[in-house]
Amino acid sequence: MSKLVIVGTVAFDAIETPFGKTDKILGGAATYIGLAASQFEADGAIVSVVGGDFPQQYIDMFRAKGMNVDGLEIIQEGKTFFWSGKYRNDMNSRDTLVTELNVLENFDPKVPPNYTDAEVVMLGNLHPLVQLSVIRQMSNPKLIVLDTMNFWMDNTLKELLEVIAEVDVITINDEEARQLTGEYSLVVAAREIMKKGPRFVVIKKGEHGALLFHQNDVFFAPALPLEEVFDPTGAGDTFAGGFTGYLAKTGDYSYENMKNAIIYGAALASFCVERFGTERLVDLQAPEVRKRLRQFQQLTQFDIELT
Amino acid sequence: MSKLVIVGTVAFDAIETPFGKTDKILGGAATYIGLAASQFEADGAIVSVVGGDFPQQYIDMFRAKGMNVDGLEIIQEGKTFFWSGKYRNDMNSRDTLVTELNVLENFDPKVPPNYTDAEVVMLGNLHPLVQLSVIRQMSNPKLIVLDTMNFWMDNTLKELLEVIAEVDVITINDEEARQLTGEYSLVVAAREIMKKGPRFVVIKKGEHGALLFHQNDVFFAPALPLEEVFDPTGAGDTFAGGFTGYLAKTGDYSYENMKNAIIYGAALASFCVERFGTERLVDLQAPEVRKRLRQFQQLTQFDIELT
Repeated sequence: MSKLVIVGTVAFDAIETPFGKTDKILGGAATYIGLAASQFEADGAIVSVVGGDFPQQYIDMFRAKGMNVDGLEIIQEGKTFFWSGKYRNDMNSRDTLVTELNVLENFDPKVPPNYTDAEVVMLGNLHPLVQLSVIRQMSNPKLIVLDTMNFWMDNTLKELLEVIAEVDVITINDEEARQLTGEYSLVVAAREIMKKGPRFVVIKKGEHGALLFHQNDVFFAPALPLEEVFDPTGAGDTFAGGFTGYLAKTGDYSYENMKNAIIYGAALASFCVERFGTERLVDLQAPEVRKRLRQFQQLTQFDIELT
Repeated sequence: MSKLVIVGTVAFDAIETPFGKTDKILGGAATYIGLAASQFEADGAIVSVVGGDFPQQYIDMFRAKGMNVDGLEIIQEGKTFFWSGKYRNDMNSRDTLVTELNVLENFDPKVPPNYTDAEVVMLGNLHPLVQLSVIRQMSNPKLIVLDTMNFWMDNTLKELLEVIAEVDVITINDEEARQLTGEYSLVVAAREIMKKGPRFVVIKKGEHGALLFHQNDVFFAPALPLEEVFDPTGAGDTFAGGFTGYLAKTGDYSYENMKNAIIYGAALASFCVERFGTERLVDLQAPEVRKRLRQFQQLTQFDIELT
């Protein structure tokens, strides 16, 4: 069991999908990552910032899930980051309606002293300089995992490349991998990204699953085919939380073990999308997760004997 | 080892991709299906029609691959079906430049007498009435597999539904599954298609792999991530030929064995796209196939123990 540091947003989201809409509900990358990682009883710390409007009940919930919140700064006179978005009918694209950075604008992350020795660091999607600041605070990280998005490629590419050079794993979606490298083939794109630093590249393809690249090897985790995707918000972060939570729990950062980790990530993400926001994750029980992992086995395992 | 009847086009194709273009080369659904099935030394018969312009060397090649060509009618005064298409840069879409039906226009398929008792029938993409005619000639088929496309949904839906009602397996791409059912979720679409007749539904997602549905079960075969797709022509037919060739060879039409069959189909399809037309398939050797199957195992097999 290794310690896990999670940096990312803790936010309010207002979401509209073809199935309905929500008021301001709990959201943010660190929230989803933390909830997913808590399935492994990982010794995790959330490093983030919220405003005075952030309900104590959510902080209590993080604690009840075993998350350390000493690094969750509360700026009483400020307001919590707010995002609002609306999904189109196919659920594969969405329009951002509102983004209010609020307290996030001057976020200066502080890793709690007893977590600066954590082995696993999950850098949720944030300004690259914030991610870099967290890396600088770690004394002996064994596995740094980076999530990012096209916004930072467009606006802060130099800083982003600095971060990329220092991490072990990058998670990125297919379009972003193509944008970052100018290569259409994901195999070629992943190879180019590895040249920039990371030893492992995870390319997320949404409903089409995720690919894990390492050296000349590649592993594929499908997304579970679902009758209905209710709300995709947080699925990528849940995937990252399952991935890093499992790795922190096992303390094994080999490629072979990462295969299991991305299956766990895909399994947890398949729950996330079944309800609005964090609703499904908050109550998720271990037997449900085991049952879903069995579905992943049935979905992918075959029995061809090769001589 | 069961007999396999393959009905489909045998054609000339002229193909243009970002990598180059061909003159008239050997193509057609039955050609790709037959070449893929020949990897299993299946006792297969090709039922099709060509014109007097069709080179004897291709017919000799089919024979050398162990294919029976007694049902390959030659209309000396006619011309072979010709298709020409151009792929766009992403290789996922193509424009048809020329379609000359020629001898295909009045194709009246005749299954050779010693193949009417075949257990496995592969109905390549053709007019539904032609497919129906082949079904009517079979004395005791155990597994009828249907491939079709949106063109027949648009123009001959009534006849297509008649065929669908009589087959065991349908292979269809994701957009066609949605069109046929009006359902966006592929899980729901597959269930609706099963209500129309087939006990098994294979939904092809191109570079995103293929799903096999049966009752409440689902299995997923990924496409092998490739550095470069040279020419996608025939990949779907190669997939179908690997699928039915393996099933005919094993004579086991269970859901469990179909999982292996779609992995074989995906493996052979991954070769097809590496060169123009049938070029890669014609020379494909068994050790190469075994090596690729090992790649599929490494791509998908993981080791999570569940209590």
